[in-house]
Amino acid sequence: MTVSPTPTAVDVENSAFLKAIVQQIRANDPYGTYRNWSDELLLKPYVVTKAQKREISVEGDVDPITKGRIMAFYRAIASCIETETGQLAQVVIDLSHEGFGWALVFCGRLLVVSRTLRDAQRFGFDSLEKVAAEGEKLVKSGVDYINRFPDVAKI
Amino acid sequence: MTVSPTPTAVDVENSAFLKAIVQQIRANDPYGTYRNWSDELLLKPYVVTKAQKREISVEGDVDPITKGRIMAFYRAIASCIETETGQLAQVVIDLSHEGFGWALVFCGRLLVVSRTLRDAQRFGFDSLEKVAAEGEKLVKSGVDYINRFPDVAKI
Repeated sequence: MTVSPTPTAVDVENSAFLKAIVQQIRANDPYGTYRNWSDELLLKPYVVTKAQKREISVEGDVDPITKGRIMAFYRAIASCIETETGQLAQVVIDLSHEGFGWALVFCGRLLVVSRTLRDAQRFGFDSLEKVAAEGEKLVKSGVDYINRFPDVAKI
Repeated sequence: MTVSPTPTAVDVENSAFLKAIVQQIRANDPYGTYRNWSDELLLKPYVVTKAQKREISVEGDVDPITKGRIMAFYRAIASCIETETGQLAQVVIDLSHEGFGWALVFCGRLLVVSRTLRDAQRFGFDSLEKVAAEGEKLVKSGVDYINRFPDVAKI
């Protein structure tokens, strides 16, 4: 009998969405900083507990590392939507007002993801399962919009 | 016989779009800096000749004043679209890559304006007529999109 050291219902191997995040991080690693990091280690910063969130100040602008993490999350959504629908998806993150802003993913003239961000300095999820679940929910909803309004997505 | 000192085909009085830009600038003037400025003076920075553009460096990020000018331009478009259609319009300007980025105006899930920006440090037009013409063109095109896809704009 083997005992798994960190038993989780979801891991990178069985979540297409978590794989897509990892792919985004590795694609934006020109100096090979993460070359020897495991997928799990790359995803670790996406898990931020409630207690940890309370300790992160929401004063001032969002630091570039957190911004990169948010970007990789929404780019992973865009990438999964592209894979499922064959439609090119663009990502725009606008964090102009001290942690407030927008995360948008669009195909043609259709906004397939439209989220307001607040306290973006604290961006993160309770667990890796939650990351995967939230990502998959947004991918599904985006794909549904494209199926509902194919003409708008193709402009 | 009166001679007009600066004869132009378009002025603020007969352009709803130029009026909308002025309104945006005055609305974002908490300290009353522009209180005694004429509308013409407020609009002057929107006119940047080709020779002036060549002198503006496109190295580095876009300065906050230019960013504010771009924002007021697209907010004026959003405001004119709101007036014509009664639909709430949001503006997102994303200038992340040294003068490169996106200007987006959206109603519901519909992108009514979707523009890539480049060399945004040089944002400006040959003349006030061109500012008015470009703005009105984008407003008209945005209103057309809403009329074509009212369901998407109302989500």
